[in-house]
Amino acid sequence: MEKLRKRKSNRDTVLQVAAHLFLTKGYQLTSMDEIVDHSKVSKTNIYYHFKSKEDLLLQIMSQFMIHYQERIDTVLARTDLSVIDKLGSFINVIAEDNTGTDYLAGCPFITFYTQVSNDLIKVQEMVKDFFEHQTTLLEQLLSEAIQNKELPEQTPIKQTAALIISSIEGGLFLTKATNNPLLLNNILTSVAFLLKK
Amino acid sequence: MEKLRKRKSNRDTVLQVAAHLFLTKGYQLTSMDEIVDHSKVSKTNIYYHFKSKEDLLLQIMSQFMIHYQERIDTVLARTDLSVIDKLGSFINVIAEDNTGTDYLAGCPFITFYTQVSNDLIKVQEMVKDFFEHQTTLLEQLLSEAIQNKELPEQTPIKQTAALIISSIEGGLFLTKATNNPLLLNNILTSVAFLLKK
Repeated sequence: MEKLRKRKSNRDTVLQVAAHLFLTKGYQLTSMDEIVDHSKVSKTNIYYHFKSKEDLLLQIMSQFMIHYQERIDTVLARTDLSVIDKLGSFINVIAEDNTGTDYLAGCPFITFYTQVSNDLIKVQEMVKDFFEHQTTLLEQLLSEAIQNKELPEQTPIKQTAALIISSIEGGLFLTKATNNPLLLNNILTSVAFLLKK
Repeated sequence: MEKLRKRKSNRDTVLQVAAHLFLTKGYQLTSMDEIVDHSKVSKTNIYYHFKSKEDLLLQIMSQFMIHYQERIDTVLARTDLSVIDKLGSFINVIAEDNTGTDYLAGCPFITFYTQVSNDLIKVQEMVKDFFEHQTTLLEQLLSEAIQNKELPEQTPIKQTAALIISSIEGGLFLTKATNNPLLLNNILTSVAFLLKK
């Protein structure tokens, strides 16, 4: 662990340590001094990479969003899967990443979003753009499934995409809040049952 | 407004003012001094009613939970509605209450939950019990719908209840995060379409 850490840049170490603290202890309750303590990176060095705690948060969020987007893009690009199976993999990408974590709200984005005040506009914009983009991708996937006759023609695309993305987000929160690791699987089973029948 | 406020007890005023601040500005960012300022109730009086900021939070959460439970119980007791329509009213109870609010996470319970650290066990227990109870009620409703032949016999009860409750919670968050007031209606349309077809 120590060896691994040394190979990482100070910037990466700080990003990782701060993300863990922001997500499990809370953004408001984590001080820059604590990030210094846990990362063993000096305050001067931290402020060389990040202008402020807000800036650090924004860079962490950006890193998380790129990570999810890359994994989702990989699923969507698979030509060996039916659309329904892509949908399942889409949900699994998110479920796997969050199983066993102790993020305050289950989902990292709800956790970041909810802890900053309404005046941190940049955080709000990033989260809005991210979920609008995921919704568009889901709508395209559903539309493709209708064209392929995997789903009935009258399936309401916008509404079904809203249901799926909302149930994933709510499912991540409720997995944490009710301590039920099977919840996202139940949601996936239900979506598959309802869409297929 | 002033007149109305004077008729309320100091305890009620403090509960209302603190709930608004905790939900829109944030629990960690709200000090007891600020609650004194906004409520015009003295600190001594506040501490007469509430042992601490945590105690105040727990009493607010309890009040919110009773409020929702009463409204949901009223919907469930209606004999003039089909089960599918009760389900719609169930979602509407939650949607109406949250339209136009500026709660940080859309849903008040996600907002409270996410802002306290993992060591405030009592908050976690209350939220867990609340959602487990709502899930049980939904499961009963779905089972009733199957008995009435409003839903196909093979509808997976546990999974569908998980989908509905998760999509409401996620929908409340995403209504706020993507600034889309139609989202919960879209979810309701989609649930109705998928269950009925």
